[in-house]
Amino acid sequence: MNLTHPFFDADGDKLREECGIFGVIGAKDAASITALGLHALQHRGQEACGIVSVDGADFYARRGIGHVAQVFSGPAMFAELPGTMASGHVRYSTTGGQGLRNVQPLHADLARGAFSIAHNGNISNAMALKRELVNKGSIFQSTSDTEVIIHLIATSRYPTLLDKFVDALRMVEGAYSLICTTPKRMVACRDPLGIRPLVMGKMGDATIFASETVALDVIGADFVREVEPGEIVEVRIDGRVTSHRPFGNHAARPCIFEHVYFSRPDSVTGDRSIYEVRKQIGVELAKETPVEADLVIPVPDSGVPAAIGYAQQSGIPFELGIIRSHYVGRTFIQPEDGARHADVKRKHNANRALVAGKRIVLIDDSIVRGTTSLKIVQMMRDAGAAEVHMRVASPPTNNSCFYGVDTPERSKLLAARMDIQGMAEFIHADSLAFVSIDGLYRAVGEAKRDAAKPSYCDACFTGDYPTRLTDLIEKESPDQLSLAVDELT
Amino acid sequence: MNLTHPFFDADGDKLREECGIFGVIGAKDAASITALGLHALQHRGQEACGIVSVDGADFYARRGIGHVAQVFSGPAMFAELPGTMASGHVRYSTTGGQGLRNVQPLHADLARGAFSIAHNGNISNAMALKRELVNKGSIFQSTSDTEVIIHLIATSRYPTLLDKFVDALRMVEGAYSLICTTPKRMVACRDPLGIRPLVMGKMGDATIFASETVALDVIGADFVREVEPGEIVEVRIDGRVTSHRPFGNHAARPCIFEHVYFSRPDSVTGDRSIYEVRKQIGVELAKETPVEADLVIPVPDSGVPAAIGYAQQSGIPFELGIIRSHYVGRTFIQPEDGARHADVKRKHNANRALVAGKRIVLIDDSIVRGTTSLKIVQMMRDAGAAEVHMRVASPPTNNSCFYGVDTPERSKLLAARMDIQGMAEFIHADSLAFVSIDGLYRAVGEAKRDAAKPSYCDACFTGDYPTRLTDLIEKESPDQLSLAVDELT
Amino acid sequence: MNLTHPFFDADGDKLREECGIFGVIGAKDAASITALGLHALQHRGQEACGIVSVDGADFYARRGIGHVAQVFSGPAMFAELPGTMASGHVRYSTTGGQGLRNVQPLHADLARGAFSIAHNGNISNAMALKRELVNKGSIFQSTSDTEVIIHLIATSRYPTLLDKFVDALRMVEGAYSLICTTPKRMVACRDPLGIRPLVMGKMGDATIFASETVALDVIGADFVREVEPGEIVEVRIDGRVTSHRPFGNHAARPCIFEHVYFSRPDSVTGDRSIYEVRKQIGVELAKETPVEADLVIPVPDSGVPAAIGYAQQSGIPFELGIIRSHYVGRTFIQPEDGARHADVKRKHNANRALVAGKRIVLIDDSIVRGTTSLKIVQMMRDAGAAEVHMRVASPPTNNSCFYGVDTPERSKLLAARMDIQGMAEFIHADSLAFVSIDGLYRAVGEAKRDAAKPSYCDACFTGDYPTRLTDLIEKESPDQLSLAVDELT
Amino acid sequence: MNLTHPFFDADGDKLREECGIFGVIGAKDAASITALGLHALQHRGQEACGIVSVDGADFYARRGIGHVAQVFSGPAMFAELPGTMASGHVRYSTTGGQGLRNVQPLHADLARGAFSIAHNGNISNAMALKRELVNKGSIFQSTSDTEVIIHLIATSRYPTLLDKFVDALRMVEGAYSLICTTPKRMVACRDPLGIRPLVMGKMGDATIFASETVALDVIGADFVREVEPGEIVEVRIDGRVTSHRPFGNHAARPCIFEHVYFSRPDSVTGDRSIYEVRKQIGVELAKETPVEADLVIPVPDSGVPAAIGYAQQSGIPFELGIIRSHYVGRTFIQPEDGARHADVKRKHNANRALVAGKRIVLIDDSIVRGTTSLKIVQMMRDAGAAEVHMRVASPPTNNSCFYGVDTPERSKLLAARMDIQGMAEFIHADSLAFVSIDGLYRAVGEAKRDAAKPSYCDACFTGDYPTRLTDLIEKESPDQLSLAVDELT
Repeated sequence: MNLTHPFFDADGDKLREECGIFGVIGAKDAASITALGLHALQHRGQEACGIVSVDGADFYARRGIGHVAQVFSGPAMFAELPGTMASGHVRYSTTGGQGLRNVQPLHADLARGAFSIAHNGNISNAMALKRELVNKGSIFQSTSDTEVIIHLIATSRYPTLLDKFVDALRMVEGAYSLICTTPKRMVACRDPLGIRPLVMGKMGDATIFASETVALDVIGADFVREVEPGEIVEVRIDGRVTSHRPFGNHAARPCIFEHVYFSRPDSVTGDRSIYEVRKQIGVELAKETPVEADLVIPVPDSGVPAAIGYAQQSGIPFELGIIRSHYVGRTFIQPEDGARHADVKRKHNANRALVAGKRIVLIDDSIVRGTTSLKIVQMMRDAGAAEVHMRVASPPTNNSCFYGVDTPERSKLLAARMDIQGMAEFIHADSLAFVSIDGLYRAVGEAKRDAAKPSYCDACFTGDYPTRLTDLIEKESPDQLSLAVDELT
Repeated sequence: MNLTHPFFDADGDKLREECGIFGVIGAKDAASITALGLHALQHRGQEACGIVSVDGADFYARRGIGHVAQVFSGPAMFAELPGTMASGHVRYSTTGGQGLRNVQPLHADLARGAFSIAHNGNISNAMALKRELVNKGSIFQSTSDTEVIIHLIATSRYPTLLDKFVDALRMVEGAYSLICTTPKRMVACRDPLGIRPLVMGKMGDATIFASETVALDVIGADFVREVEPGEIVEVRIDGRVTSHRPFGNHAARPCIFEHVYFSRPDSVTGDRSIYEVRKQIGVELAKETPVEADLVIPVPDSGVPAAIGYAQQSGIPFELGIIRSHYVGRTFIQPEDGARHADVKRKHNANRALVAGKRIVLIDDSIVRGTTSLKIVQMMRDAGAAEVHMRVASPPTNNSCFYGVDTPERSKLLAARMDIQGMAEFIHADSLAFVSIDGLYRAVGEAKRDAAKPSYCDACFTGDYPTRLTDLIEKESPDQLSLAVDELT
Repeated sequence: MNLTHPFFDADGDKLREECGIFGVIGAKDAASITALGLHALQHRGQEACGIVSVDGADFYARRGIGHVAQVFSGPAMFAELPGTMASGHVRYSTTGGQGLRNVQPLHADLARGAFSIAHNGNISNAMALKRELVNKGSIFQSTSDTEVIIHLIATSRYPTLLDKFVDALRMVEGAYSLICTTPKRMVACRDPLGIRPLVMGKMGDATIFASETVALDVIGADFVREVEPGEIVEVRIDGRVTSHRPFGNHAARPCIFEHVYFSRPDSVTGDRSIYEVRKQIGVELAKETPVEADLVIPVPDSGVPAAIGYAQQSGIPFELGIIRSHYVGRTFIQPEDGARHADVKRKHNANRALVAGKRIVLIDDSIVRGTTSLKIVQMMRDAGAAEVHMRVASPPTNNSCFYGVDTPERSKLLAARMDIQGMAEFIHADSLAFVSIDGLYRAVGEAKRDAAKPSYCDACFTGDYPTRLTDLIEKESPDQLSLAVDELT
Repeated sequence: MNLTHPFFDADGDKLREECGIFGVIGAKDAASITALGLHALQHRGQEACGIVSVDGADFYARRGIGHVAQVFSGPAMFAELPGTMASGHVRYSTTGGQGLRNVQPLHADLARGAFSIAHNGNISNAMALKRELVNKGSIFQSTSDTEVIIHLIATSRYPTLLDKFVDALRMVEGAYSLICTTPKRMVACRDPLGIRPLVMGKMGDATIFASETVALDVIGADFVREVEPGEIVEVRIDGRVTSHRPFGNHAARPCIFEHVYFSRPDSVTGDRSIYEVRKQIGVELAKETPVEADLVIPVPDSGVPAAIGYAQQSGIPFELGIIRSHYVGRTFIQPEDGARHADVKRKHNANRALVAGKRIVLIDDSIVRGTTSLKIVQMMRDAGAAEVHMRVASPPTNNSCFYGVDTPERSKLLAARMDIQGMAEFIHADSLAFVSIDGLYRAVGEAKRDAAKPSYCDACFTGDYPTRLTDLIEKESPDQLSLAVDELT
């Protein structure tokens, strides 16, 4: 069953993880292992990808628009990526149409040698830092906030590359998991709150870093541990591993939405699989907001585990009332007449014979703008459903993310615009309920959310942002900071 | 849930439908409706597709290698396919590497005017007919057996195009569903046994033909009826419909494998959905070969409906023990070391936390060569499953198909090489069972298979072929039929 | 010095040869020899090219849009064209936008075996023959008149391929030089009047056919003789050569415009080079229409040899008063303002310092529509020329060609619209003169044109067409011959 | 007649100008005017080109591999390059295979605003400057020495962009003609010795800069004057022109090889055309080294003007004894046997009928490695020439250029390896002579070369380099300057 999120979401009705990263050091075929690892992380970024390999001296790169299996598709390609170290990146849309320039890993030649960097996250003071760097003579080639880190390293006065790296990260605020490669070392690190994930694995003598454990499974590596919040792990080409903690200790605040939607169900965090957590959210949901119905129907594919949980808890049979097509492309053309609702039917089709005359519980993972929910509920009614009850496996999403997730602006979020009753009416459901924030924390294994010291970043549900948001503050208070215009006199 | 079969099956371990066809007459935007319809039939042929439109006088064509959403992807494209009639085709690999030449619909300019033709099926005397036509001066441009029909029409002595068409089909043996377009008419027909499917729908004034009902759903059309075995339906551009039956009456023998695997679960034949039939096969399987176990796990995605049926009948919980990735491409490259079994893991990954220590029933739709089953069973064992019992939702596949389905030669079919016990050992399962042929007939609504007069073509399970197989017989008894070689004297 | 005609003539102000052909049998690397030969014939057709090779059994083909050096550009390409026989074709625009379908050599699989054919010329009853063939069931794939010959061969009742070939050519009227390949033979032939050229050469054991001798030079082969008008030369793969003359004897009428413009100056016909003939035309022109002037200036590049002849005969110095750029592409974009006459200047630029204040004689090879002459004369005046006298190295072109040369329709030919005085005024020249038809015949070595029995086809100058023009006659007397439209009843 | 140098010179037997530049400010359609201007400069760089346009605020760029007419070929393309200012660049091979990264104009966003830069020349201390910049934190994106100038500007402490620009150029040594664009200004400048050319023109209100006058001709602009050595010309968007001379006065040393080979014959420097100079070199050559012969034959195309001069001075007839093909591509494939010398014949073919039995004088513009001369002399002998005397329209080329011309290293230059007698034997000529250095200076209008104060850079003939060559000196005395390698500790 496909529980990864497969397609560009044309409705903009899902939140989108912006990146996945992977690195390996000490392995023959490092580049093809990286391709395989990125492939397993494809759900984290489907629009572009890149791999940089290193042979102990030189760097080799290939970046492209498209899926990993398209961009990296032949032995010749890997022959051009030699070396026992490689790192890679998958990403969503290269904002600003700059095409390949923004596709990572980024690479730079510095005085102390070359290095490359792959980044998952978002730097919340990138604009402010960029302004300063440009004023001192740095020339930017991309619009990626990752390039800010590179220029901070290049202009740092510290003597060694590791010191420069730490110096650069001290200036940075926000969320970042990074994999950095030099000719003889790989350095992986995670921001002090550990907002974005990063795990470490082992396969023979090789060390691996990846956004999720599923990338370890797919290449056949063993999970070692998570890279800890604020930790810098340095791996030498001879296999020696050193851990640095230059930023002191902070309580971790990993992103809770990874459990709800981003991560693959077969990934593991802590000691439980994402699949289990999602099924458990379904169980909590069934306990919190039961309903009398004939069938539990998942909105495919991300609603499936919660639907199984809901069905097992409630005793209502789990059935496939909606069939999802594999073949949805993003640029598909619509006939102008005749074929009403063709766009949603192209992706989802009702299993009419099953649904007709039945009371159904629809299970989805989240509601963002509400546009898809509206269409799905209507499709069920058109197929003859007697009642349609919607149950959502996350609390209402009513705040934007500034940590590397592409969220619509707040005013477009359905939950920011109306209350639950209004939402139910908007999507034409007979009833609508969301799991509570405490229910969600129970599903991940806590008693409830500790408001004073929450264990996760849950800002999208609560508005409780764990870092300062410099660029946002400046943008909302525009002042004399505009870039000086060209004056040649 | 994605129950369509999404990817090229690298193991060659599924049978593959070779084509899907679609036609519409009397609709504005006929070409884009056709693209949408073909898109819904994409699972029937994923390697190439084509659309021919007609504006009452001229023909416009576009054909390409790739999915419908890739080949037909912009408004400009449809502007080049004007007219109120269009027909289209999706297909598997263009055998012989002839590239676009074999991509349908094929088109020809005859003395009586131009026409195009889209074909699903296989002509079992194509080689013999081609030899004769070439001897009389016909020049073939493709290796497609469909071109045989075109030359038979071109050289027929009958006066009208319809008469020529009937004259041509009389010479043809095998399976065919055809959609033929002339400047002012659309003609759809099905071979006398109705081996391959073809349905007829209505949307406003427009008439639609398609391989499966799901294509009607997706465009928003209503199902009217199946085109009957041996029937030729002629639709004029003004909407008038005429039915011709030049071949007399035969008992129908539609392909039963459409129920098992080819058709989309949301398609309907007779009055039941394919999903229901498949769930019912799971029910029959649970009755015929029960097993004590902790979890019922489908081999995704085609095993899901039968697994739900098996779980509901047996009371054993349905769980997702295998996670399937959306992103498998066919040319993906494998690291040469380290990553053992990466190919199967790239597609399927075990949900370890769930499976470990459990007795599981694996449900798959069929076993062809057995290579995938072997890997999946091993993956379950590697993930810690205590026992692995395989249950298969079709009888043993031990004969090749000559009616438009790509089957390995007989000697490669696992069920033709060994008995069930041998197969169980081959795939390392603790037990293995197939649904019986009578169980399968029960699932489609009959009491059992009537050996004297079976209601379906089930030759792949029984070897009982409903037509003569001329080319096969000639091939197996080679004689003096070889093509004359070039002798210029 | 580049005396080949290099670019697409955007003004349509040159006649264009429509094709060049080349074949070799008995040579290792036959395909790459063919590419080299076609390259030397590139001036005869610059828009598309193709090569078919044969390895004694199978045919291998590659065709493409573009120059030979673009379409055939790597060793891998030639590895896919194995065998000791190959034939090739260069051509102008594939009329009708049918793209690659019309690119030759064409290929067909007949009952007697496969063959390919490359054609230079034009069949003047192609439409009439095609109509008949279609009525009998032939299906055409291209709009090329060459395909008519193929279908005539395919449907011939004669037993051997050579007999079929002769049978087909008997029905054909017009101009053709053909190179035909079967698995074991190469057959070259020329129409009974020998309108289009074809020569035969030898290199070791290999036999070569080509449109011009320059192709023999470039590959290092020796010239043997011309293929004679009406001759069919058959070469077996073992090297045996047989000559057939099935059409009796006719007086030859080769195209005289080959001397004026089409052929490369380094090609040889009879025993003199084209360069010599063209220089001699300049000499005749200087004798017939002398003028007092300071400089003889060629319109580059095709006017150069005649200008040298004119300068040597008149004693007026030869100078480069117009510089031609190498880099004119056809799709180049023009600024909308500012740059007046940019299009002609892009190709030709005046050598101002040389021309200013001088009386000049401009020498060009021919005037077709007059548009280029008009611009060139004006350019000389803008550069300060005191007087501009135009001398043309061919008689006035006032009839269309129907033998394989792309001519504007008659009403567009300047010489068909006005007399010489009118033409002089149209192009703003101080004087204008053309070589006389007898002067042209003197330059090719005859005393004068024998009106009763001319030795060349000179229809473009005289209107004296040496064959019947069936299609033209039918087109000008349209009758009930229109193709029957589609009627399905 | 094509006197521009048309093709990649596969033998490496010509020196190659590395760039041409063009800019226009104050014109509607600035980008398409720039394309036309670059097209006229195509002979200065045929491998890649780029245009940047500015609309008073934003920059728009397009760069590509290939000829101008290929890279800029449709109205849509120019619609994407709006604005009344544009600059462009044509270049030879992007050294280092960095593809598009090195294609100019380069662009950068600095603190004081964005600008772009197009450069013709070579900076002879680029490596040294780059090392320093990287040590201070600059990150280079290309291997182009032009980027050094950009980083010098970006890191300059001066307040205005013009001051930064002057500050940067003060640090630079070598040859440069630059066209720099800011949102509201265009700045053109030439190095203090004026080694590389740059002219200024006017068309209505628009100001134009270009490498040669031919670009002005082609767009219909008037020549105003040369940009003077060491001058910075600043043009505001309102048309005001200001000249700056921050580097004091130097005696000019323009490249004399522009007259011999690089420039187009229809370009003008001083008050004489390049064509006249070249003809005059032929005259000097005939005076210095006469020979008894029957024909003067140019090596096409660059030898033509000198051959006309030689013929006029000597009275020996000028004839086209070698025909050059237009269609030579660089990747053309050679048959492995049979076709001896096919590569040279593909480009040049002997006019046998003319040459046989004659004593000929061959005129070429220069001899670099001697490989082409060797083949051409042999071709003349194979065609039956009785005697072959080679005369060369430049002095022996025996030193490398470090100012923007691609020269083989010194050890590959024929004239650096042997004396004239040795060279004559090497190329198998009956006699060989070069014009003297004083003869060359006479042809450009001086009495003779003033060794104390030569008026031109003639280092390729004399070894007298007019600037310091820092990078060369460092390379030849390698010391501890190597880049620090990556050390992360």
